[in-house]
Amino acid sequence: MSIQETIHQMGRQARAAAYKLAQLTSDEKNDILRAMAAAIRRRTPELLAANVLDLAAGEAKGLSNAMLDRLKLDEKRIEAMAAGIDQVATLPDPVGEIMDAWDRPNGIRISQTRVPIGTIGIIYESRPNVTADAAVLCFKTGNATILRGGSEAIHSNVAIASALAEAGAPEHAIQLIPFTDRESVAVLAGMDKWLDLIIPRGGKGLIETVVSLARMPVIKHYDGICHLFADKDADLEMASTLAVNSKTQKPGVCNALEILLVHRDIATGFLPKVATALREKNVEIRGCANVLEILPDAKPATAEDWDTEFLELIIAVKIVDSLEEAVAHINEHGSHHTDVIVTRDEVAAEQFLGSVDSACVFHNCSTRFADGGEFGFGAEIGISTDKLHARGPMGLRELTSYQYRVRGNGQVKG
Amino acid sequence: MSIQETIHQMGRQARAAAYKLAQLTSDEKNDILRAMAAAIRRRTPELLAANVLDLAAGEAKGLSNAMLDRLKLDEKRIEAMAAGIDQVATLPDPVGEIMDAWDRPNGIRISQTRVPIGTIGIIYESRPNVTADAAVLCFKTGNATILRGGSEAIHSNVAIASALAEAGAPEHAIQLIPFTDRESVAVLAGMDKWLDLIIPRGGKGLIETVVSLARMPVIKHYDGICHLFADKDADLEMASTLAVNSKTQKPGVCNALEILLVHRDIATGFLPKVATALREKNVEIRGCANVLEILPDAKPATAEDWDTEFLELIIAVKIVDSLEEAVAHINEHGSHHTDVIVTRDEVAAEQFLGSVDSACVFHNCSTRFADGGEFGFGAEIGISTDKLHARGPMGLRELTSYQYRVRGNGQVKG
Repeated sequence: MSIQETIHQMGRQARAAAYKLAQLTSDEKNDILRAMAAAIRRRTPELLAANVLDLAAGEAKGLSNAMLDRLKLDEKRIEAMAAGIDQVATLPDPVGEIMDAWDRPNGIRISQTRVPIGTIGIIYESRPNVTADAAVLCFKTGNATILRGGSEAIHSNVAIASALAEAGAPEHAIQLIPFTDRESVAVLAGMDKWLDLIIPRGGKGLIETVVSLARMPVIKHYDGICHLFADKDADLEMASTLAVNSKTQKPGVCNALEILLVHRDIATGFLPKVATALREKNVEIRGCANVLEILPDAKPATAEDWDTEFLELIIAVKIVDSLEEAVAHINEHGSHHTDVIVTRDEVAAEQFLGSVDSACVFHNCSTRFADGGEFGFGAEIGISTDKLHARGPMGLRELTSYQYRVRGNGQVKG
Repeated sequence: MSIQETIHQMGRQARAAAYKLAQLTSDEKNDILRAMAAAIRRRTPELLAANVLDLAAGEAKGLSNAMLDRLKLDEKRIEAMAAGIDQVATLPDPVGEIMDAWDRPNGIRISQTRVPIGTIGIIYESRPNVTADAAVLCFKTGNATILRGGSEAIHSNVAIASALAEAGAPEHAIQLIPFTDRESVAVLAGMDKWLDLIIPRGGKGLIETVVSLARMPVIKHYDGICHLFADKDADLEMASTLAVNSKTQKPGVCNALEILLVHRDIATGFLPKVATALREKNVEIRGCANVLEILPDAKPATAEDWDTEFLELIIAVKIVDSLEEAVAHINEHGSHHTDVIVTRDEVAAEQFLGSVDSACVFHNCSTRFADGGEFGFGAEIGISTDKLHARGPMGLRELTSYQYRVRGNGQVKG
């Protein structure tokens, strides 16, 4: 069979599996999830052996140490994967929830009921743990998955997917595409008859490719150019603490702070204070011209810095004249992910929250809380930068659709 | 400016307008809506004059009478358009609604708040009233719209859009693309920086084109191949009445019945009864081989008939052996729009509702209730055949997104 025929067949199989998955009770799904965790634990030796093949190929290809570390599985990481699956089994199942229900004057009773989406394609890069994480969240919500991982992790991915598949799930509930070339992405993205949704997990290049090819909905996880605005009524101590935590607590992730905006009225008092605290954490400060007057040893920021997700210990700092200017800057230069205002002025805070066009808008707390775990979702498939269907941290609920179920007793339209 | 430059500029303007629209109160929006209705009424002579140009061009091009009728505006239709706008002003505004709110152990307070989507592109064909209907629903929900109508109605569309624009809405809240060529669709569909959503309203060809070009989410309104399944425990009188109403009450629309499935156990008693009632309404019956044994004067159904949205007085009828076969047939051949079971058996009904993969699943009522008006939404932008974001009848709520607003008092991530 050609790549196209193979993937289309997987699509048909996924659809058939989805109909079976939709009929499983929460208890049945949770039992299978626990069996999946057990299978991952039991198969640890095979997973390690498969991973050794990927690591050897990666070294031969000259992958960086950072890339090899992403690729690497060890007993601790495999146990974490299994424990993650056990944890998903304990979460409430959103499927079947009545979201809304009402009666109409003619006596028909309408209910809006949560149902699985159906079939979901996951396209991802080098981390093999995504195979388990994504498949398990989709399974919990009654969706069939087709996984297409990167070539670097193919042996590990095959081993993980095969462990998951032996745990009693309906046949073809979790399928891994055995091809890692580009054509397989194109075929998957064009297969809107069999696939209801694609979630790309990886860098901007991967997402862009999927977006340009996909005929079905795509939920995108683009970058996080997150801002903190220290308003004129900010508690300076709090603003400094929040800026440092947001920037340095884990700099390489999408909810880390990249841009600090400071109200002109507090700049002289605040900038030296926050600069000292940031530099204690080895953060490089790049300032606008006005910032450089107050912090002469900061680097000048370039025009591109305002549109950059640094993902390292660099922060760009700009003085603004007003809350309105801060909001306008964020809406123009940000990535609509997570933005924070620090202020004691409740009116200013509400104005900020109500006018910044981002998935997460925060008052007086760290950007790092933009996270499914911190929100209490128990699990997270990602942080959507889209506005349709799912925005911001995506938990299990965002992996469901709904259906209108209407019950009548013979009503006709007159 | 080139077409591309013009449309990109409209995109930038729409984004700026969207930020202003998001700040309007419901009262302010409703006042503007009533002013739009008044402007439509006041401009009736200009609308009629513009429409005459479209009708003359349509006649010269040899458009069918049906097409010309879709295109035509008269005083009654213009008054209906204005009355529709007044009606939208009376509906509750979903923007600002707190969908969910909770506190976390660290004291941050999270709320999920409805906000406008932002900017919406509407691509439609010949009916000029879509210009007002779509723009007004988007305006009510705080979204800026870019409209791209068909060439047949261009004069009417320009006149309507210009009437709407003079009613006090923020500048560029409603913009009509002055080009009707194909390039303008391609430019719009590629403009994901400025446009958050595209809604194509029209035939399958238009939707397919938009789906293959669009980089942003598209909400699709594909066809309705709706089924009614008369179960073995159906009340035969009710099943016949519902089949006739679903098929004939308005045959040319997506929620009209196309396929009747009959349980083998009741076929002999039911088919002659329903055939008589359907034929009284001039419905042509096309049957499977088993149906033809009972209704020898029915036409034989072809294989394609099971996958056809007839939109006229034709129905395809098939005998099935079980509820499971009915469900499998619907899931394979239907368009996942609206499907009905008629039965007195509550268990069978719930099994059907829980296993048919359609936006609307009904028990004992007409398919014709799959409609925003019938659901009580007050207004409808269409009936989505998608599973993401909006499924089934789409009202004002489905024209919104949400945002997480988080309020803390200095919390950092440890």
